[in-house]
Amino acid sequence: MKKVVFVVIDGLGDRPLAEFNHQTPLEAAETPNLDKLAAGGISGAMDTVDVGVRPGSDTAHLALFGYDPAVYYTGRGPFEVAGLGMEVLPGDICFRANMGTVGKDLVVKDRRAGRIDDTGELVDLLNNSEIDGISFLLKKGVGHRVGLIMRGRGLSANITDCDPHAEGVKVHQAEAKDGTPEAVFTAKTLNKFLEMAHCKLSGLATNKEREKRGELAANYVLVRGAGTLPQITPFFDKYHLKAVCIAGGGLYKGIAKLIGMDAPEIKGATGKFDSDLDKKITAVLKLYSRYDFFFVHIKAADSYGEDGNCQGKKEFIEKIDRSLAPLFHLKDTLVVVTADHSTPCRLKAHSADDVPVVIYGQEIRDDDVEHFNERECAKGRLGHIKGTNLMPIIIDMMGMAELFGA
Amino acid sequence: MKKVVFVVIDGLGDRPLAEFNHQTPLEAAETPNLDKLAAGGISGAMDTVDVGVRPGSDTAHLALFGYDPAVYYTGRGPFEVAGLGMEVLPGDICFRANMGTVGKDLVVKDRRAGRIDDTGELVDLLNNSEIDGISFLLKKGVGHRVGLIMRGRGLSANITDCDPHAEGVKVHQAEAKDGTPEAVFTAKTLNKFLEMAHCKLSGLATNKEREKRGELAANYVLVRGAGTLPQITPFFDKYHLKAVCIAGGGLYKGIAKLIGMDAPEIKGATGKFDSDLDKKITAVLKLYSRYDFFFVHIKAADSYGEDGNCQGKKEFIEKIDRSLAPLFHLKDTLVVVTADHSTPCRLKAHSADDVPVVIYGQEIRDDDVEHFNERECAKGRLGHIKGTNLMPIIIDMMGMAELFGA
Repeated sequence: MKKVVFVVIDGLGDRPLAEFNHQTPLEAAETPNLDKLAAGGISGAMDTVDVGVRPGSDTAHLALFGYDPAVYYTGRGPFEVAGLGMEVLPGDICFRANMGTVGKDLVVKDRRAGRIDDTGELVDLLNNSEIDGISFLLKKGVGHRVGLIMRGRGLSANITDCDPHAEGVKVHQAEAKDGTPEAVFTAKTLNKFLEMAHCKLSGLATNKEREKRGELAANYVLVRGAGTLPQITPFFDKYHLKAVCIAGGGLYKGIAKLIGMDAPEIKGATGKFDSDLDKKITAVLKLYSRYDFFFVHIKAADSYGEDGNCQGKKEFIEKIDRSLAPLFHLKDTLVVVTADHSTPCRLKAHSADDVPVVIYGQEIRDDDVEHFNERECAKGRLGHIKGTNLMPIIIDMMGMAELFGA
Repeated sequence: MKKVVFVVIDGLGDRPLAEFNHQTPLEAAETPNLDKLAAGGISGAMDTVDVGVRPGSDTAHLALFGYDPAVYYTGRGPFEVAGLGMEVLPGDICFRANMGTVGKDLVVKDRRAGRIDDTGELVDLLNNSEIDGISFLLKKGVGHRVGLIMRGRGLSANITDCDPHAEGVKVHQAEAKDGTPEAVFTAKTLNKFLEMAHCKLSGLATNKEREKRGELAANYVLVRGAGTLPQITPFFDKYHLKAVCIAGGGLYKGIAKLIGMDAPEIKGATGKFDSDLDKKITAVLKLYSRYDFFFVHIKAADSYGEDGNCQGKKEFIEKIDRSLAPLFHLKDTLVVVTADHSTPCRLKAHSADDVPVVIYGQEIRDDDVEHFNERECAKGRLGHIKGTNLMPIIIDMMGMAELFGA
């Protein structure tokens, strides 16, 4: 059986830029390895979620793995908490959270509590609280970030954010988005917890000392992105491929874990500008005999796009290109390279522009595309596909697709 | 923020013709301005409603503005009566109607009552009639055309046409298309009104005089296209763009008004062969500071197609092309040119052939297409899209699309 190396370059797509003579960073970059994949593979343009839809990183990745986000996506919470290593059970309501600072009137002073380093003591103080039969489970993430799960009977994720997403305004009360008793109860219980947490955190000796030193107290849990575990068929059951995630960013590991992929810690993979790409490819080679499907996620192209740094994006793409060279030594392996969405440097945000995709391997129907970029891949033989089309195409190329009919 | 000039050339698409050396009228025409848009923009082929679906002008325009006609279209009536300036309320059943001529046996002699010029007196006679608690509101349109609204409680648009769409056959009785009491009641009440109207019109002095002079009496209201006000989100609420319609034809103004666009009277815009296209483009420039989205509708290409006049269609396309030149002076503006459907000259009717589309502007992903026509645009980077995809693509290019996910 063939194996698959599935490389997702986050935010890779862009728009033509004057400083690159009306080329995108990917078109302007020197990318001999990506071009070799295009020359020997089949290329296309892909709308990861749908035509004209601006994908989030979470919805885009669900689609890339063949799970329609319109069906399976409820909110970002479950992916984030899974990325922190929390176990998520059916019925759990999961949130992304920050430890933040509010004044006496509950007006947000700082959404990140002065970028507090370690929330361990705060999380221990609040973890396993119980209110009206509902457990509140917390785990610390990087810096000010925290994962929060509400666990118990009769909850709903259809509630609003408490994090006002801005400073200088009062924290919001959670509200039911619909009139169901579940949503009303969830919002009410969450509000009780946040009030209690604020009271406990405000009284904590460490916070009082921070205030004495003129620092910001981490006295409020700002929650957002309520969601439940998607009721999905695990990746292995769906495709019969043993899959591993090689990523630095927590969200991507969280998505991978929720669909049943292994997501080991990869040393040097940070999900940041300094991520060691060579170590990621080395990890593929090291794990090669143990898995069938290798999801390699590379983050920083997106971050350069969000910073509007087109030169940085171009150079990082060239760095990615160099790191891919060892993949050509793998026999009987499909190499897939694509993106989850475009992040145009001028827009500094995700856009709905389609992304290039290439599938490289033996005896597949290659095409006339010789360069891996937005303009050339759009002329490829895959045509315009959607994100949810990609896995079925790969599985069929591996000779593993089920017959529809007889 | 960018602005959008959205030009719809009605019935533009065609099929290759022997008299144009196997080219379409658009391919045969000299169109330097349209070609400049194609060379600097992103092109594609578009099925306005769906692949293989022959669109009406009404369904096509709904789709172009991002409203799926499968969801929002009930019948042409509401667009026609809104185009006549009638106010349409939720629950109203709206019809297109002709003043026609029937014999004593109710066999249609002429569907247009000898193309009667002015139906003012006839409309006044019948307007505000009330039958079984239902009001019948009428307004005169151009020539024999009339708008009709049934207003009251418990009505349904799911009834058949009374207009037999042919001469020499008896008028039809309206019938319920489903078994609901609303549809049965609506059909029964409409039939009562049409019988009463026939009786009143037959007794009218003016009609008796017409008959004495050997002319056709306008003695029957032939109704068709029952529909209700679509329950749609207004264009502004959907896209946050202040929109204006620049059109001569009543239907197009009616569609624009129903989705909440302004539709001022444009002097010289007639919706006919003699329409002053330069005045339409001048109207865009004059209104430029007051709106964000300019829907410019150009009708006569469709009329030439329906007449089978391919030379006329080609020359009219060249006239359109010349009129577009001032649009190149607009800064920070997306110029979109497309059609609502094809009207092949040989078919003399709408067809399901896809239509060319181009989006022109700064820093968008242009492609290798250099000519705006059916053959070349189909090679463009947009690929094959549907009508309902177009507005989301435009909104994303403007950086205004909502994120799905996080």
